[in-house]
Amino acid sequence: MEIEDTYAEAFDGYYSRMIVTGPSEKWAKVAVREVTGYATSMIGCSSEAGIENASFNNPDGRSGYIIQIWAAKKRMKNELLSRIGQCILTAPAAAVWNHCESEEMLDIGYKMRYFGDGYEEIKNIANRKMVAIPVMSGEFLIECEFGVSKGVMGGNLFIFTDTQNRALLAAEKALDAIHKVGGVITPFPGGVCGAGSKVGSDKYKFMRATTNQIYCPTLADKVKDTKVKDFGGVTEIVIDGISEEKVREAMAEGIKSIQSVSGIKRISAGNYGGSLGKVSIHLHDLI
Amino acid sequence: MEIEDTYAEAFDGYYSRMIVTGPSEKWAKVAVREVTGYATSMIGCSSEAGIENASFNNPDGRSGYIIQIWAAKKRMKNELLSRIGQCILTAPAAAVWNHCESEEMLDIGYKMRYFGDGYEEIKNIANRKMVAIPVMSGEFLIECEFGVSKGVMGGNLFIFTDTQNRALLAAEKALDAIHKVGGVITPFPGGVCGAGSKVGSDKYKFMRATTNQIYCPTLADKVKDTKVKDFGGVTEIVIDGISEEKVREAMAEGIKSIQSVSGIKRISAGNYGGSLGKVSIHLHDLI
Amino acid sequence: MEIEDTYAEAFDGYYSRMIVTGPSEKWAKVAVREVTGYATSMIGCSSEAGIENASFNNPDGRSGYIIQIWAAKKRMKNELLSRIGQCILTAPAAAVWNHCESEEMLDIGYKMRYFGDGYEEIKNIANRKMVAIPVMSGEFLIECEFGVSKGVMGGNLFIFTDTQNRALLAAEKALDAIHKVGGVITPFPGGVCGAGSKVGSDKYKFMRATTNQIYCPTLADKVKDTKVKDFGGVTEIVIDGISEEKVREAMAEGIKSIQSVSGIKRISAGNYGGSLGKVSIHLHDLI
Amino acid sequence: MEIEDTYAEAFDGYYSRMIVTGPSEKWAKVAVREVTGYATSMIGCSSEAGIENASFNNPDGRSGYIIQIWAAKKRMKNELLSRIGQCILTAPAAAVWNHCESEEMLDIGYKMRYFGDGYEEIKNIANRKMVAIPVMSGEFLIECEFGVSKGVMGGNLFIFTDTQNRALLAAEKALDAIHKVGGVITPFPGGVCGAGSKVGSDKYKFMRATTNQIYCPTLADKVKDTKVKDFGGVTEIVIDGISEEKVREAMAEGIKSIQSVSGIKRISAGNYGGSLGKVSIHLHDLI
Repeated sequence: MEIEDTYAEAFDGYYSRMIVTGPSEKWAKVAVREVTGYATSMIGCSSEAGIENASFNNPDGRSGYIIQIWAAKKRMKNELLSRIGQCILTAPAAAVWNHCESEEMLDIGYKMRYFGDGYEEIKNIANRKMVAIPVMSGEFLIECEFGVSKGVMGGNLFIFTDTQNRALLAAEKALDAIHKVGGVITPFPGGVCGAGSKVGSDKYKFMRATTNQIYCPTLADKVKDTKVKDFGGVTEIVIDGISEEKVREAMAEGIKSIQSVSGIKRISAGNYGGSLGKVSIHLHDLI
Repeated sequence: MEIEDTYAEAFDGYYSRMIVTGPSEKWAKVAVREVTGYATSMIGCSSEAGIENASFNNPDGRSGYIIQIWAAKKRMKNELLSRIGQCILTAPAAAVWNHCESEEMLDIGYKMRYFGDGYEEIKNIANRKMVAIPVMSGEFLIECEFGVSKGVMGGNLFIFTDTQNRALLAAEKALDAIHKVGGVITPFPGGVCGAGSKVGSDKYKFMRATTNQIYCPTLADKVKDTKVKDFGGVTEIVIDGISEEKVREAMAEGIKSIQSVSGIKRISAGNYGGSLGKVSIHLHDLI
Repeated sequence: MEIEDTYAEAFDGYYSRMIVTGPSEKWAKVAVREVTGYATSMIGCSSEAGIENASFNNPDGRSGYIIQIWAAKKRMKNELLSRIGQCILTAPAAAVWNHCESEEMLDIGYKMRYFGDGYEEIKNIANRKMVAIPVMSGEFLIECEFGVSKGVMGGNLFIFTDTQNRALLAAEKALDAIHKVGGVITPFPGGVCGAGSKVGSDKYKFMRATTNQIYCPTLADKVKDTKVKDFGGVTEIVIDGISEEKVREAMAEGIKSIQSVSGIKRISAGNYGGSLGKVSIHLHDLI
Repeated sequence: MEIEDTYAEAFDGYYSRMIVTGPSEKWAKVAVREVTGYATSMIGCSSEAGIENASFNNPDGRSGYIIQIWAAKKRMKNELLSRIGQCILTAPAAAVWNHCESEEMLDIGYKMRYFGDGYEEIKNIANRKMVAIPVMSGEFLIECEFGVSKGVMGGNLFIFTDTQNRALLAAEKALDAIHKVGGVITPFPGGVCGAGSKVGSDKYKFMRATTNQIYCPTLADKVKDTKVKDFGGVTEIVIDGISEEKVREAMAEGIKSIQSVSGIKRISAGNYGGSLGKVSIHLHDLI
């Protein structure tokens, strides 16, 4: 197995981070799946979002999950109001707690209190300033303020394998290791990007992004500069994290977890020649 | 247990319906969860979307799910392009097949073919005209055209119980029965709306929708016209369906499934006095 | 698709039936999976056991499942004491309630009270006589008496398909329909028997049961009287139920659910020429 | 939070360890759940068994899980033949591979070949000697020989918390960390023993094991030497592992993972004064 001597090119970005709790593990998961849905890539979605992991040390002692939502800084407030208002407020007996320390705080809960139509109250719960809004399932609790902070988006790993099935299994194993690190999300469906793109297009000039043919196994014999000659499968994992350190650690743990898996031929990473992102994470520095 | 002599007020709306398949049940589910996420209510989301049920009779013989996406008719094409492009195209080894017969067809797959940058092909698979786009996980298959059809949104049931826990259990049971009907989705998180709203606001005139205080158990002693006096729990299920018949059948099956559950005090439905929606579904006609 | 003109040969047997509840759906499921494990067939296991379905109308208002345990009548008491004592008593905060009406009752809970070492109490809960045993997770509640009743074992369906993958998908769909009937379990792993056997052996005389070569797709070209010529996949579902009616209904619903699935070639059933079991269920009577 | 200055008393025992693969993650899990069911404690079950973790590096490149089965050495062969024959052979399209190096090998697959009734074959797959038995779902593959090795049983942790709900959440978090270690199983339902026992009985002399009243929260005010005064919840995790090192590591990781969880009051361990088990694992040595 070869770890290519290359680097992932990552970018600064803004995130908010929160704990969502519910009346059971099932219903907490329902809420976080809904609120982080349709959020794979900022290219076409209003945000990138994902679940970090189950959270066990929650202010209300209930089951919960830590999630991240990434958006352009000036759009963050609206994005949080909309996603939380549509997907967590409506989830039965859910609550949402800030989990992002920052100098700048957004008054999300405070703004959402108007939904209470005068019946809302400000409560101090577990040393947090919470808005309690009466709803059908009891009281919806939301922290008055949520942080917004700078992190790193677009950390990534490419895994090349002998078969496509193995590429998915390897990705599942790497994702397990990546999520154990904490502080990171993998915004694509199930953590895997099955359709990596390149900027622009060779043929259709009106397209901003098209399939990256050099990584397509079915084109291995048709494309000159293919990167998947002799590889049956390839998969990409994209990682957003609260710091460069966390993204590096997640990439390192992901690599380590699959180094000895049979059928894995190469681990690589994606970049744009360093022209776009400020952060370069060299794979050979990670191991 | 009382079934209130009232009706659900429902509306005409437009949906598209499709089958999403994947390389395993797990990865098919990953794709449909992502594409139907952040889609609980047209009030604040770009669409209402949901999973009908597992689908077993799929063109490619793989695991799959039937989903619906509802949007304003003129916005449907963009909504489908965006949700499918961001959430199914990127899901590893997923494919998507039209499951909506209609006079008017939207050329979703045909439009998305540009992502293939010239490497795409039109293929006939299982008597369907498919676009095959080479991607990292193999070929992304998408049908050239998807239907858009008129259905009924906003069918609903209110369940009043002795405790909040029982309200959730009853909703889970009713949802099981509702989804067996087929042809319907329940767009709120996990199928349950835990925070029903009323139009406008009594106190904050700038709000278009606020909590419906008469259904809030914690306000039962503070609100004059409360509907939850002596009820510890209440939950609402909203149903969108491909026809009025299917919505009626789903509501009927939902009611039947919980009629004998102990702790259920009343089943009701929500309406706006018949002023807004064209479709009235009287509960007493269903049983 | 052909429904063969044949019948399933089924047998009388004895079962007990109960509701197991827990502090959440997850932990209720943990308990019922453990207690119904290693129980696929009376040929080699101490019992046949399975989960009917989620149960929503439970005496304690918590999440729960209905299960069945089948054993020889004279062994039933020991089987219940052992399975419940090892797998439900030890599951955190679980409780178990009789769900089997019968003339003869077994004093399972009454016997198990000795585990309480004098700290146990008899309590009346939801009009049931329960033993409450103090344990680490609170109080283990078990009904004093459990019924044992006569039912029908060995109802079955064979599904022949074009591919093995399709055979599994078809079985999943049929199992969904079968479990909706209620009153039945499907004791094999996940409800599917992937390795049907014949009585005795052609070659190894000391064997009581060996593979049934006429149903093995990989032997289709080597075995003269093969039943799977031109079939790529075959799967068997075995059904035990509280009455012949329920088993018949489950078989009928299973057949109906897959009749229109493409790739299904034949539905059949297994029998021993009527020499062993008292109950014959003809497929053509079901549809 | 206090870590008590005490030790877990553990024992030598014999295990076999294997990888079970299936046609999808779902069906692999179905097989391992069935074969490790009804196996919480050697006191009342024929074996202790459990799932270590998902396995990604499998000889056939399919989804799979590593499991352990513990039994008295002289009973191991029969236990494996029975559990594998009833629960993995019958699971659709499953296969089972030895994952236990040892001097002594048990000829499990070789013995099970008779089920093939002459149609079985010995095949070399991934450098393993496998028996291929034709069955309805294709070929059942089982390695000819399985190892049996000496390990350590009965490693354990007690977690004392403010509420019973928190005890379960803490256990879930610790179990996550424990299973990441690899090489260990937690045989009780879901990994948690909710009903710890003491040897013998104070009141019923015919009982070999009864509830350990000093750990019962509901008896905190009634039992003199209670260990749960002021604790609302307590939970026990039992760990079996392939070596003392692995059991120690698992206990250490379990402790670390919950050290900072609010509501946890004390972590302890269980022993019998050192009279029974050869292995003492002091908690203060782990941190």
